[in-house]
Amino acid sequence: MTATTIVVMLFAKGHGTGNDFVIVPDIDGLLDLPAGLVAALCDRRTGLGADGVLRVVRMSAAKRIEPALGASAGSGDTGSAEWFMDYRNADGGIAEMCGNGIRVFAKYLIERGLAVGPELVIATRAGERVVRALPDGQFTVDMGSARVTGTGAVEAGSQRLAGLAITVGNPHVACVVDQPIAAIDLTAPRLLAPADLKDGANVEVVRIVGDHDVEMRVHERGSGQTLSCGTGAVAAAVAAAVALGEWPDGPTVPWSVRVPGGMLAVTPSDTASLLTGPAEIIATGELAEGWIADRLPVGSSTSRDT
Amino acid sequence: MTATTIVVMLFAKGHGTGNDFVIVPDIDGLLDLPAGLVAALCDRRTGLGADGVLRVVRMSAAKRIEPALGASAGSGDTGSAEWFMDYRNADGGIAEMCGNGIRVFAKYLIERGLAVGPELVIATRAGERVVRALPDGQFTVDMGSARVTGTGAVEAGSQRLAGLAITVGNPHVACVVDQPIAAIDLTAPRLLAPADLKDGANVEVVRIVGDHDVEMRVHERGSGQTLSCGTGAVAAAVAAAVALGEWPDGPTVPWSVRVPGGMLAVTPSDTASLLTGPAEIIATGELAEGWIADRLPVGSSTSRDT
Repeated sequence: MTATTIVVMLFAKGHGTGNDFVIVPDIDGLLDLPAGLVAALCDRRTGLGADGVLRVVRMSAAKRIEPALGASAGSGDTGSAEWFMDYRNADGGIAEMCGNGIRVFAKYLIERGLAVGPELVIATRAGERVVRALPDGQFTVDMGSARVTGTGAVEAGSQRLAGLAITVGNPHVACVVDQPIAAIDLTAPRLLAPADLKDGANVEVVRIVGDHDVEMRVHERGSGQTLSCGTGAVAAAVAAAVALGEWPDGPTVPWSVRVPGGMLAVTPSDTASLLTGPAEIIATGELAEGWIADRLPVGSSTSRDT
Repeated sequence: MTATTIVVMLFAKGHGTGNDFVIVPDIDGLLDLPAGLVAALCDRRTGLGADGVLRVVRMSAAKRIEPALGASAGSGDTGSAEWFMDYRNADGGIAEMCGNGIRVFAKYLIERGLAVGPELVIATRAGERVVRALPDGQFTVDMGSARVTGTGAVEAGSQRLAGLAITVGNPHVACVVDQPIAAIDLTAPRLLAPADLKDGANVEVVRIVGDHDVEMRVHERGSGQTLSCGTGAVAAAVAAAVALGEWPDGPTVPWSVRVPGGMLAVTPSDTASLLTGPAEIIATGELAEGWIADRLPVGSSTSRDT
């Protein structure tokens, strides 16, 4: 009496400034995607390898996989989003938003003919986000509000660095320094302040290298050092603007933010910070049936019923 | 007057005990695969990510990409190989053989219907290798001769470890120890002896944990610590056999070799060492046209003429 099933799992791989993702198209929200399978996909030796998974789900089917959708997240949501970005961290955990991931997500939708640019509204667990495809191939995304919440400090190797506690939806401690950032030990920075960041924070070291031009390195909470971090780039620009006395009441100027994986542009704002950067699709394909079967929990079915 | 070209580059990704590969089918040897493109494919953030590339070329076309083929490599070659494994390291450099890679290569050939098992003869730059598909899904490969060439020693972190210099086509220093191998610092082992290994060697630390049963960790020359190394597993079994007084004149017994990425079985021999282990195909797909175009040197053409 069990239905015959064909296990089909398509994917694409893409990256934005070296932050890489496995994209899983699941238009009708029919795939079973437990945390263990996400982690297996992201394993860099025995899976496809990525920093996270972006599942592509049509908005009309999204409540099937995320019941909370539409209930609360974005108070300013217009309900005009056609697609939901189900973003997962490499460990399988649910995450709200990813500034590099959403550009790759938008690029995938347009390339596959699933959406028409240049402006897309994409639903995330942090609410709707507007993404715009630029003529030069880059994408700009509205990252929402950035706010300085206080002072911060970290111990990086043998150094104590002073910084600012900044929230861009998620918490950051961004430290503007006047030394080569390549030499700073970001292997395991220890958060000294503020005291209330019990769950940790992303740590950025930032150096101003030109006119509204910074370089940064980042240690992401739960991931370690990465080649790029979208919210971290926003936090870096805010911290640099504060150092120049241009925050919160400065000119609306885009900052160049050099991350290890490339170049981003950030226009920081306490209402709608803009992040611009590249997005690239590397490949498309299909997971091997045997590979999926070995990784699904018993009784689970990542499948399409026939 | 230039031919219209369609850039098509198919791939599969696979692994053997965590040693992972991008497989590039190029049946007729028509693809241009410069070192830079191999390195881009193997980049774990901006490419597909792998320890190396296995290009699949029909033997009749193999001389197109490897003129030396058939000239020298395997003096015992029968000329019965139907396929050539063009193996490249992650940096794009040409490599001769890979004990984990050739199992994945054989699995790919059989799964795709390009060869009929259970026994395949595969040409490599180190000569022909016989691979056998086992009923349990694993593969056994003849790794050729293993020889002890002298004593060796390495400095691993603050420890000095004594070992044996062993060649399995490539050079190894394998150190049998009587301490937990997890605690040994293999980040950057320094070769103390033998003095003639100017080009370095793979370093294995090996502990006997049962009856013909060892665990090992490996630092690969040019790659650092890896989850598995086929020739290293052979060297580890030889070193353990020496420690038991079973080399070179001991019983022909398979050793269990526990590597960080799984389990291998090795029957060491000074003529034809056998390596048995799993092989898995993870996914198949196609590289994005734009991704390839951005990474080909000007004037180059990874393409199929139409």
